[in-house]
Amino acid sequence: MSQAIMSTDQDTINPVQWRNNALELLDQRLLPGEETWLRLEDVEVTAGAITDMVVRGAPAIGVTAAYGVVLAARDRYSADPDTWKTAIQADLDTLNQARPTAVNLRWAVARMAKLMSGIDGDPVPVLLAEARRIHDEDIAACRHMGELGAAYIDADAGVLTHCNAGALATAGYGTALGVIRSAWSKGKALTVFADETRPWLQGARLTAWELLHDGIPVQLLADGAAAYLMQKGKVQWVVVGADRVAANGDVANKIGTYGLAVAARHHGVRFMVVAPTSTIDMQAASGAEIPIEQRDPDELFLAGGKRVAAEGAGAWNPVFDITPAALVDVLVTERGALDSPNAASIGNLMGI
Amino acid sequence: MSQAIMSTDQDTINPVQWRNNALELLDQRLLPGEETWLRLEDVEVTAGAITDMVVRGAPAIGVTAAYGVVLAARDRYSADPDTWKTAIQADLDTLNQARPTAVNLRWAVARMAKLMSGIDGDPVPVLLAEARRIHDEDIAACRHMGELGAAYIDADAGVLTHCNAGALATAGYGTALGVIRSAWSKGKALTVFADETRPWLQGARLTAWELLHDGIPVQLLADGAAAYLMQKGKVQWVVVGADRVAANGDVANKIGTYGLAVAARHHGVRFMVVAPTSTIDMQAASGAEIPIEQRDPDELFLAGGKRVAAEGAGAWNPVFDITPAALVDVLVTERGALDSPNAASIGNLMGI
Repeated sequence: MSQAIMSTDQDTINPVQWRNNALELLDQRLLPGEETWLRLEDVEVTAGAITDMVVRGAPAIGVTAAYGVVLAARDRYSADPDTWKTAIQADLDTLNQARPTAVNLRWAVARMAKLMSGIDGDPVPVLLAEARRIHDEDIAACRHMGELGAAYIDADAGVLTHCNAGALATAGYGTALGVIRSAWSKGKALTVFADETRPWLQGARLTAWELLHDGIPVQLLADGAAAYLMQKGKVQWVVVGADRVAANGDVANKIGTYGLAVAARHHGVRFMVVAPTSTIDMQAASGAEIPIEQRDPDELFLAGGKRVAAEGAGAWNPVFDITPAALVDVLVTERGALDSPNAASIGNLMGI
Repeated sequence: MSQAIMSTDQDTINPVQWRNNALELLDQRLLPGEETWLRLEDVEVTAGAITDMVVRGAPAIGVTAAYGVVLAARDRYSADPDTWKTAIQADLDTLNQARPTAVNLRWAVARMAKLMSGIDGDPVPVLLAEARRIHDEDIAACRHMGELGAAYIDADAGVLTHCNAGALATAGYGTALGVIRSAWSKGKALTVFADETRPWLQGARLTAWELLHDGIPVQLLADGAAAYLMQKGKVQWVVVGADRVAANGDVANKIGTYGLAVAARHHGVRFMVVAPTSTIDMQAASGAEIPIEQRDPDELFLAGGKRVAAEGAGAWNPVFDITPAALVDVLVTERGALDSPNAASIGNLMGI
């Protein structure tokens, strides 16, 4: 099985793969206990896999959605070659609505849709090539961001990350974990800490699994312990990914990111966000315009699949939060790193 | 069983009871799923129950230890009425070492020990009376602190609490939850939020159970969501207990408390610590002198009893942290409430 999770051309985990005319996803709900691949042959199950978090992480969701468009086009074209471009609109909506916060989803669907008007005949070859391009570009972006971000970090630094912004959250290599991987590959002996990241435990389950897969030691901590970790001087950097970055640099990311940013500023710990430009939403002027997903209270009521909360309790379960740009020291994208990102520097980066 | 957890004279949960010549503890490891009482007949099992968190919460640990001294004295006196005062020293050490951070443990053992020199004959009646006095004083202190703390809180406030500083953490009624109970009983319609409080989930398991038992609605949140809750303006107060308060007002409390204090200050949310004077350690000049317990990494590796973390991960699992006095807006004790507590005001309160 470990062979299966490696992309063929490089030694990185690749959780999203097009194989034998279908999309295959490593089921992230079952990691690290089980490495199970799901084979998705139509767009409905692809959207469902995004909603149910078989795949998660903004860039990985984008790549998955791109392949989902290929599956949709194949079925719609096969059903009626004359009307598929109209019929597929419902599928694009279904994909777009699979999850609300990560903008890469809509970005990838829009990029795929843009190609469709010029297609004559079978759309699959053209769309599959574009999905593969999105996929490859994401890996290349992660590797370049890894280099750019790693340059900021001293060789003996302590680094804290949150959730999973790794190979599993992207098409491979990772955003925040790409920075850690890159620094590590350059011989920087970072001390890596990972928040366990309740409620879904991406840190304990996915980030630890990924880093250990690459031979990078990692220490887990309760999310509530992060501020004390900073008070004890154990970390100099917080490095996280993003699900959406607004035009002014406000960052939507996994719940808990904002508290880390507040604590980091309080302690003089630097705060780095690593995200490809596909995560930047120039339509959202600020974080206030980014929709924040609320998920099932059972994510809080259960732990390890077992009911832990008292019966009758309510829950407040937003799974993302907004970190104001003012708390971000560096925004690393594949087009460059911005110190103290703001509307002007992001507009410039995006060529607007 | 619900009858059993009520003290006879008032409608509060009382997790520590002396019944039929032994100590009975409500096993807090099994709540809220099971309400099981353990009967403890000697000091070794009593110390073990403290270490294993059958009972937890600084005041409850203190009351338990006081009864543990009674059990020790009974056995030592029965074994040899002439040498029991010497022999019991080993038992006092065992109790004192059961957990390191909550100072109420040592406070209660020292208070019991102080009586022993004057005892002639069977020590049990004298020591049991003193243990009951400690027990009753704790409940009275909680009720008085509840009144004092509730006076600070507006009728329509949102209140966030962390861990369990309730009846289960005391001899009954609670410190932080005593404030919430008192405000509620005065008709203040607080909106109560409780951090789930990883790794032991005291918030989800115990605080929610307790508040719902009293008919007070509560919403759980992931610990990482607290800063975002404040950003959204949903709470005006954070109210927590303490495991030890240093002479300068620094507070040791459940891991995550410090991050809440940092976030509260950032948002102008007020931060209240509720603790009886038995929690104040005048021997510790500052928080730097308070020992912080590190517990088994399995507390992080497991959730709901199931392994969730990737194999091979390390863990950093301090279960308390230190909040500097400068971040505490109010310290409520049974002798009065101190705004912006500091060494001078605490010294004055303690009569030094």
